[in-house]
Amino acid sequence: MKLSQRALDIQASPIRKLMPHAVKAKSAGVKVYHLNIGQPDIPTPPEMMKVYHEFSEKVLAYGPSQGLEVYQQGLVHYYQKLGIKLDTKDIIVTTAGSEAVTFAMMVAANEGDEIIVPEPFYTNYNGFATMASIKLKAITTYAENGFALPDDAAFEALITPKTKAIMLCNPGNPTGAVYSKEELFRVAEICKKHDLFMISDEVYREFIYDGLSHTSVLQIPGFEEHAIMVDSVSKRYSACGARIGCIVSRNNELMNATLKFAQARLCPPTVDQLAANACVYLPDSYFMQMVQEYQSRRDLVFNELSAIDGIICKKPEGAFYIVAKLPIADAEDFVIWLLDEFRVNGETVMAAPAEGFYATPGLGKNELRLAYILNKDDLKKAMHIFRLGLEEYQKIKR
Amino acid sequence: MKLSQRALDIQASPIRKLMPHAVKAKSAGVKVYHLNIGQPDIPTPPEMMKVYHEFSEKVLAYGPSQGLEVYQQGLVHYYQKLGIKLDTKDIIVTTAGSEAVTFAMMVAANEGDEIIVPEPFYTNYNGFATMASIKLKAITTYAENGFALPDDAAFEALITPKTKAIMLCNPGNPTGAVYSKEELFRVAEICKKHDLFMISDEVYREFIYDGLSHTSVLQIPGFEEHAIMVDSVSKRYSACGARIGCIVSRNNELMNATLKFAQARLCPPTVDQLAANACVYLPDSYFMQMVQEYQSRRDLVFNELSAIDGIICKKPEGAFYIVAKLPIADAEDFVIWLLDEFRVNGETVMAAPAEGFYATPGLGKNELRLAYILNKDDLKKAMHIFRLGLEEYQKIKR
Repeated sequence: MKLSQRALDIQASPIRKLMPHAVKAKSAGVKVYHLNIGQPDIPTPPEMMKVYHEFSEKVLAYGPSQGLEVYQQGLVHYYQKLGIKLDTKDIIVTTAGSEAVTFAMMVAANEGDEIIVPEPFYTNYNGFATMASIKLKAITTYAENGFALPDDAAFEALITPKTKAIMLCNPGNPTGAVYSKEELFRVAEICKKHDLFMISDEVYREFIYDGLSHTSVLQIPGFEEHAIMVDSVSKRYSACGARIGCIVSRNNELMNATLKFAQARLCPPTVDQLAANACVYLPDSYFMQMVQEYQSRRDLVFNELSAIDGIICKKPEGAFYIVAKLPIADAEDFVIWLLDEFRVNGETVMAAPAEGFYATPGLGKNELRLAYILNKDDLKKAMHIFRLGLEEYQKIKR
Repeated sequence: MKLSQRALDIQASPIRKLMPHAVKAKSAGVKVYHLNIGQPDIPTPPEMMKVYHEFSEKVLAYGPSQGLEVYQQGLVHYYQKLGIKLDTKDIIVTTAGSEAVTFAMMVAANEGDEIIVPEPFYTNYNGFATMASIKLKAITTYAENGFALPDDAAFEALITPKTKAIMLCNPGNPTGAVYSKEELFRVAEICKKHDLFMISDEVYREFIYDGLSHTSVLQIPGFEEHAIMVDSVSKRYSACGARIGCIVSRNNELMNATLKFAQARLCPPTVDQLAANACVYLPDSYFMQMVQEYQSRRDLVFNELSAIDGIICKKPEGAFYIVAKLPIADAEDFVIWLLDEFRVNGETVMAAPAEGFYATPGLGKNELRLAYILNKDDLKKAMHIFRLGLEEYQKIKR
């Protein structure tokens, strides 16, 4: 039986595909420090857990396709606090950010159409694009200058009649880049000039360091018809398992069409939405503590990496990832070797090969994405193992 | 800004699109009996609710993309009890049956390919097909003979080089038809002859009446490479809001490819999976009581409908829907009229126009789907209002 071409083509997750090696190491009693996946270790807010504990409906029923109204209202409150004024009709609750991206792609572009995205980008955009039969056209950005947005000419060079949107991740996964208001406004002008949507993935909005501030695509004046924002509670509230996100736009026609996609799958999970709603009312101090913690983790990882000869990386300004260019040829081979063979006192470390975060073949082969999502003690141990591993690997493979 | 063609084309849910009329009626103080949506009123098992109440992890983390292992094992146990022997690797847990159908379509067929499905069919297959850029080719079945499966020639006439699968819903939504072992084996032969997958939607497996038994696509001998089963806990455990389903196949290559689709969206909801797992170990008496209750509801609705002049319908053998052909021209107009204008002691009733369950234009325009998901007292009142409404509507519209 022949599978569909897209089933053969769809990328295996570079974040998850090496997991069997980790599982094998663990079953042999090895402790693995996971820097490969963006699963924060911060406890989920007790306010959220309480909702699961106190759910008292007799029937666990479908909710509305656009999300529970109480949660849509909660989100209006959340965005209002950020200075973004919305109506409930501008928000459709989704099953995590993943579904929000899929909906955004499908409503903006037809099969065979193109979406421009700076690379390296969140690798699962590849999978969503394959599902939507959309072609991602990548503009390369570089570790050497902190993955800054390319200039207008680079965008314009890729635009064809098939181009329907520019997609940005801000703050960036995996780059950690935070786009300034000026940069965003500049890209918005390109979108206006060429009738493109801007799809902005802002799930790391609060993870911004060094006193920088975040600009949302929804804050660009006169851009209402173009702006599509995708969001998720996963990282923000350390609630990756809740699978609650949303798609937001003030373009009514677009939201009406998105609702039809949402109706096909009926609704997002009910209790998880109620749980997410509890988080919306957390005090600002919640984020202040969290960001402080992540900033100090970033500093630790960045300092450790910078101290290793031959590694190229800039200090990330947001999210909780860092992409490092290594002085070796094949980062995936290095990670497999770490998991299969390298031990320091019975421990090893795992990171995500960055090649899968690029669309251009061959790029990123010598790069890794590290997620700084462990407490500082563990992170210190993990980086120690990483450094020793890299030294050892370079000796062996030369 | 121009939306994608598929955003313009995708069908608005005929189950949900008339909801604004219901909301308006309710806000005017009218009680609406909902026979339009398959949301059972049966309480969700307390064993399931207990899992939400006792969830005690500190971090609500991602699970594996294929589902939590404990739940995969639970499903192996559940299917084993039905006489279907599976391995955990044959099962990928999905975000409800909706995602399972989408994965099945995408892994079996490319954009532009065709899937054959008897109509009327579960209307949201249309939405999934639009998302997957797949064309559904419908074979019409008829209320007059209980929506029996068409003969081989009808299937063969639709098969082209683009045909990749035949999709069945068994027991059928909206038809209530239950396919016999012989009928299934016959369609399986067609699939084998033409190298087609069979996608079998079996979410109503337990809802079988009059002592009939259910045959799964997974029980067809020598059909392992072709058989894809999609399933959901929504109806079975009255847990529509949990959004937990699964896709099952013994075709390893197909499951490996499906896993890549699953990895792109990371995982299904974590707590909901654990909750669903509690249901797997419910005693058989749970289903016996439930089926008895639904069978008596079916009898009530069928008898009430049969007593109305000019209505054509056969007694459904499974699921909890009945499609009735009405002696009027436009069933949707009738439903809107019921919601907007018709009241019996301040109450009215809502059903789903069946036109959206057909792919062939014009078919089903005078048909309705009624879901018998209310307790018998409410069902009796709803059918009383329905009968009076139909009489009144016929007088007015003639």
